[in-house]
Amino acid sequence: MVKVDIERIERDIIALSRFGFNEADRGVYRQGFSEEDMAARQWLRDQFESLGMAHRMDGVGNVIGRFGPDDMPAVLIASHLDSVPAGGMFDGVLGVVAGLEVVRTMKEAGVTPDFPIEVIGTSEEEGRFGGMLGAQAMTGQLTREWLDTATDEHGYALKDAMVAAGFDPQKAMHAYRRPEEIRAFLEVHVEQGPVLEAEKTTIGIVEGISGVFKWNCRLIGKAGHAGTAPMNMRSDALMGMADFAHEIGRIIDEEGTEKSRITIGHVACKPGFPHTVPGEVDFTIVGRDLDEEVMKNLAEACERVLSAIARRHKLHFEYQQMSWLKPAYCDPDLINLIERNVKDLGYSYRHMPSGAGHDVQFFCNHTKAAMFFVPSIGGISHAPDEWTHWSDCERGTQLLYECVKELACEKIVA
Amino acid sequence: MVKVDIERIERDIIALSRFGFNEADRGVYRQGFSEEDMAARQWLRDQFESLGMAHRMDGVGNVIGRFGPDDMPAVLIASHLDSVPAGGMFDGVLGVVAGLEVVRTMKEAGVTPDFPIEVIGTSEEEGRFGGMLGAQAMTGQLTREWLDTATDEHGYALKDAMVAAGFDPQKAMHAYRRPEEIRAFLEVHVEQGPVLEAEKTTIGIVEGISGVFKWNCRLIGKAGHAGTAPMNMRSDALMGMADFAHEIGRIIDEEGTEKSRITIGHVACKPGFPHTVPGEVDFTIVGRDLDEEVMKNLAEACERVLSAIARRHKLHFEYQQMSWLKPAYCDPDLINLIERNVKDLGYSYRHMPSGAGHDVQFFCNHTKAAMFFVPSIGGISHAPDEWTHWSDCERGTQLLYECVKELACEKIVA
Repeated sequence: MVKVDIERIERDIIALSRFGFNEADRGVYRQGFSEEDMAARQWLRDQFESLGMAHRMDGVGNVIGRFGPDDMPAVLIASHLDSVPAGGMFDGVLGVVAGLEVVRTMKEAGVTPDFPIEVIGTSEEEGRFGGMLGAQAMTGQLTREWLDTATDEHGYALKDAMVAAGFDPQKAMHAYRRPEEIRAFLEVHVEQGPVLEAEKTTIGIVEGISGVFKWNCRLIGKAGHAGTAPMNMRSDALMGMADFAHEIGRIIDEEGTEKSRITIGHVACKPGFPHTVPGEVDFTIVGRDLDEEVMKNLAEACERVLSAIARRHKLHFEYQQMSWLKPAYCDPDLINLIERNVKDLGYSYRHMPSGAGHDVQFFCNHTKAAMFFVPSIGGISHAPDEWTHWSDCERGTQLLYECVKELACEKIVA
Repeated sequence: MVKVDIERIERDIIALSRFGFNEADRGVYRQGFSEEDMAARQWLRDQFESLGMAHRMDGVGNVIGRFGPDDMPAVLIASHLDSVPAGGMFDGVLGVVAGLEVVRTMKEAGVTPDFPIEVIGTSEEEGRFGGMLGAQAMTGQLTREWLDTATDEHGYALKDAMVAAGFDPQKAMHAYRRPEEIRAFLEVHVEQGPVLEAEKTTIGIVEGISGVFKWNCRLIGKAGHAGTAPMNMRSDALMGMADFAHEIGRIIDEEGTEKSRITIGHVACKPGFPHTVPGEVDFTIVGRDLDEEVMKNLAEACERVLSAIARRHKLHFEYQQMSWLKPAYCDPDLINLIERNVKDLGYSYRHMPSGAGHDVQFFCNHTKAAMFFVPSIGGISHAPDEWTHWSDCERGTQLLYECVKELACEKIVA
């Protein structure tokens, strides 16, 4: 059996972590189109060069190395090279390095693919300017309007950042890849959640990316002196929010599935003084499920429960739906292929949704696409403490190798 | 029957509202020791002068006008002249103007009191530097340490503000008044709560000032991605806070009285992002009751319930008690005197606690002291919309007149 080399994987992950590494908090700062991000992209092209792969950077910064024949649809192995501020060293990077190692291992083993393999370091996935720019451009989801108007949190325009990094924004739309050019899209990624580690499971085969809705909610009551306002004469907006939060478990039990998530991540009381009954509270609701019908039921229940609570507490309830992203499903044939190979390798596995968004979701509706996870220790991600055991990186890469080999070689040769 | 003159009361309240009035938000800005505050104090001295009263300003800014014989314990009528930022025109001012009108009415009616009457505009009640400075100084509660260290929210020292306003901080302790100099202390104030208006009642006879405790609480769980963390694997600090808020009603039902208040006025989630499970939440609890035993039971219940919730949600709970102020009780004889006079006048009334703090609380443990309220429309106070009907101001002043006359005249002469 041909085995991937964990020492090379570790070396490359550490090499990439140096781009944007901050000694003070030990976090990685490699936001899209930053100097550090562009340096990491050059590093990847250097690796492609040394492996003798054809390589290029497309109009939005995706770095693409190609191995195998021309004029055939390619097996794409992709993940992102950029990071959140103070991010970890595995998020995104693992999927790119695993792709490099798959090609390296194939070359060593003398495997000649019948279909080309492309290893891609995608661009601006983490959201400095909105996120998943590279994947959206490749799958035709990118719009000129978005390109023209996107800014980072400081108001710095995407177009200006692209020009500063040496791009011509006019060429962004050139990144599009026709579906018939793509045989399959595969992404391996750290789970960024606690499930695999808690269940002592090595591989999470992703069924799809959960859909997500985000609401900005407001409950309006009446501010009052915390001493002079009797409990039964208050219109305390925070008590309304708390009653809703208390009902979230019941809402999911009644309307949701084990894949449902409802989160209140942000709360602001007005005026926010200890001695004042909160007259107004702003909070966010983020809901997720893998089934859009379930999402609708969850959303309707949230609205119904909040309306009832508002009546009970003499509050006014209003909300704005900031976004509604449908679920995206991985390809059943690819899921079967991954499952067959993980069984052959003897690794423990489970099927699971991805609660977080990933580049793969744009490829799900464009071509055959699939994804699998390896464990994140403690579920920690987007933080310097992010960690995945090297042996899990090795197993994830080995599984990727087996899948890509099957997809890229009509006749199995190694 | 001698009647107070509502036209003079209205004229004086409006005159005082001009000191620090802001045309933009129609709020009063007359914080302690500001130029506006000092100008209002001079205005009050001018009124005393024109009434032929002896007057002075003591070492902390209390402005005192005296009518009646020397060398006898005085009946004190006091409330504060300062305001919160963007405050209303009745808070504090009504009690001072009512005192002026009582003396004016007595003089017109030819009443010669056997005990002197002092009308006092107290100093820095609202808390720019901590609050109730004038009352604390008069009752011997002021400490040198506090004088030396108090600052406003911008870090400006009380001592510097006093010097800038023409005071010698060394003289602050001279404001102390021995108990035997005081026959009684009376304060009339707007309710700053909704009870009297809601119950169509004119006078609220204050039983005492509720005690109050303030806790800074923290629940610590684990931040996580709102998509990747399953509901049953979260340690969501906000859900713990919400469960506690949901139990407040039950805690008061089981451990409290109809005078109990528990308020969460401030909540801050960390990191506070919509897509992140809150790993930490800071919030305040302010609890009140008129009975210190009840306060203890409420506090113990809060701790017990929060500890249980923390265990249930896998959170760490900690809190810091920022303050514990005991209740202060009004004098039963003065309460009876007020009740007898309000009955004679035929005004509707009720007994009630004061949930807000007032100067009177420092006099409660120093001398015979009492207080009564007139209605606040909508319970609104500390806001430009604060309002009390002129006819209620008139009735409150008339009641004050009757009470002061009884207290100051051994033989009833008018």
